[in-house]
Amino acid sequence: MTTYRRIVLAARPEGAVKPEHFRLEERPIPAVPDGHLLVRNRFMSLDPYMRGAMNDRKSYRQPQAIGETMVGGTVGEVIESRHPKFKVGDVVVGGFGWQEIGLSDGGGGLRRVDASRVPMQAFLGVAGMPGVTAWVGLNRIIAPKAGETVVVSAASGAVGSVVGQLAKAHGCRVVGVAGGAAKCATVVDEFGFDACVDYKAGRLEADLAAATPDGIDGYFENVGGAVLDAVLARMNAFGRIAVCGLIAGYNDEPIPVHQFRSVLTNRLKIQGFIVSEVPDAWPPALAELAAKVADGSLKYKETVARGIASAPAAFIGLLRGENLGKQLVSLD
Amino acid sequence: MTTYRRIVLAARPEGAVKPEHFRLEERPIPAVPDGHLLVRNRFMSLDPYMRGAMNDRKSYRQPQAIGETMVGGTVGEVIESRHPKFKVGDVVVGGFGWQEIGLSDGGGGLRRVDASRVPMQAFLGVAGMPGVTAWVGLNRIIAPKAGETVVVSAASGAVGSVVGQLAKAHGCRVVGVAGGAAKCATVVDEFGFDACVDYKAGRLEADLAAATPDGIDGYFENVGGAVLDAVLARMNAFGRIAVCGLIAGYNDEPIPVHQFRSVLTNRLKIQGFIVSEVPDAWPPALAELAAKVADGSLKYKETVARGIASAPAAFIGLLRGENLGKQLVSLD
Repeated sequence: MTTYRRIVLAARPEGAVKPEHFRLEERPIPAVPDGHLLVRNRFMSLDPYMRGAMNDRKSYRQPQAIGETMVGGTVGEVIESRHPKFKVGDVVVGGFGWQEIGLSDGGGGLRRVDASRVPMQAFLGVAGMPGVTAWVGLNRIIAPKAGETVVVSAASGAVGSVVGQLAKAHGCRVVGVAGGAAKCATVVDEFGFDACVDYKAGRLEADLAAATPDGIDGYFENVGGAVLDAVLARMNAFGRIAVCGLIAGYNDEPIPVHQFRSVLTNRLKIQGFIVSEVPDAWPPALAELAAKVADGSLKYKETVARGIASAPAAFIGLLRGENLGKQLVSLD
Repeated sequence: MTTYRRIVLAARPEGAVKPEHFRLEERPIPAVPDGHLLVRNRFMSLDPYMRGAMNDRKSYRQPQAIGETMVGGTVGEVIESRHPKFKVGDVVVGGFGWQEIGLSDGGGGLRRVDASRVPMQAFLGVAGMPGVTAWVGLNRIIAPKAGETVVVSAASGAVGSVVGQLAKAHGCRVVGVAGGAAKCATVVDEFGFDACVDYKAGRLEADLAAATPDGIDGYFENVGGAVLDAVLARMNAFGRIAVCGLIAGYNDEPIPVHQFRSVLTNRLKIQGFIVSEVPDAWPPALAELAAKVADGSLKYKETVARGIASAPAAFIGLLRGENLGKQLVSLD
């Protein structure tokens, strides 16, 4: 093997993402300079934030450069090392993006993980960035008390499914919102939520009201749009909303919020956050999440696409909500 | 004098408030039971929150009852007392509503004030509820740092003018938003703001951009609607928005928010609050505000209507933004 493949951003989408916005390239495997290591990526993570990075406008991250490797988290094995702290065979989580190989000087957040008790790809999901995202939004912003009602959108996803399970462990009534009967069944039957509202069923307000008879105290926002409005209308006094994602607007379509008045009438706190900016939360969150995965008390689902060439279609599917749980690409 | 006058809510408005929603009544002055006191109100406060109370729907306060005295703050003098803690001549701030006389058992938040260094009506404005509202939103939610930019809507009003002056004392760049050239001139020339944007001039976005070259770190929201959207689009990372009022929507017209995405991209914190629910803030806030009024470092403006019969028209004018500074009704 002397070459590897990567996917670069070929063009910025105007509206919906399409396959032609990506380009598959073949490149020679680089030589490993002193102090560096080479990683064979085994899994790539696909996440909604990547859609935002594809736009060339102010956001919380630099725009993804045209012609450069698509950004993203990866997990893989060290296959060559000239770095004192890593050896061949180490399993490492990094941010090598959409490519089969990664060259690193050991910085950039690269970290060795213990894949003996937890499957390595879990460090991209439930025991990785999405899991920590759930932990931070729930514990640092929503801060739920036992007996309160917590609602989570995109409830079957990598973040939402963890939010609900952690909130349940806090003694809350936990209600998910997801698209379709199959996802809702998973949310209730496998992730243990008390109820799940299928927003595609056309009765969002009525179903949400039935599922939250005591109103809503905490909301973990992954979606935006109509779900946010429906939730705002049912928030209780002093409710908290953690804004983690707004998938409904990633394609630049307007997403007006009609129930903003609830912020005043119910004295709500709404806070947006980016998990990478809360570094002190990572060690306790990762420790708790990995322990719960290992002992089986924290469930997770994966949707795995095979081979790097499948990544664009899998990503487009993710934005459409076609995945169940964490969307991964395996590179075996 | 054996009778007094009061104004009751005659009917709930659907949309704009009109004079026929109120009714002036004449009533006999009540006898004063043991343990009670009688107050002759000298000034009534008119405030935007009263519009919300006129609606019969879920809000942070009980709806104003039909046929009952309009709610509101008052300041006046004790004219008869059978209460051990109050004597004739005491100046008291209370919540007697839109009426010339108040009967009290000493509870309900009635408090004696020292009107020797501060005019008594200031305890309804700059040194009263509106001033404390400004203090709480600024210090407890926006928590400005020197060098930051703070924007205040309804900047010439009883709350906004205090927010700006306090923020200026924190070393911030302070920009007001107000309706009309005259109000903007007052905001800059008399209240000492660095700039003021006239939202009626038809160039809201451009003028706000010019006035906030370094973006916006804190926003004190009194208005809602187009101003909120224009501000959201200019918020800096980790900005804070205190939501105190949403006058633009008091008449039940929809006020969609189009720039909600900024909450995520800029990791904003938005928090609604009601000053009566922050009791621990009142003593330090009132002490600071009264001291600053007494030493002349905190400026304020009043618009005073004369006589109780003028209250409905003055209130309608307040909702239209016709007042400058604190809207009062004098009852002399």
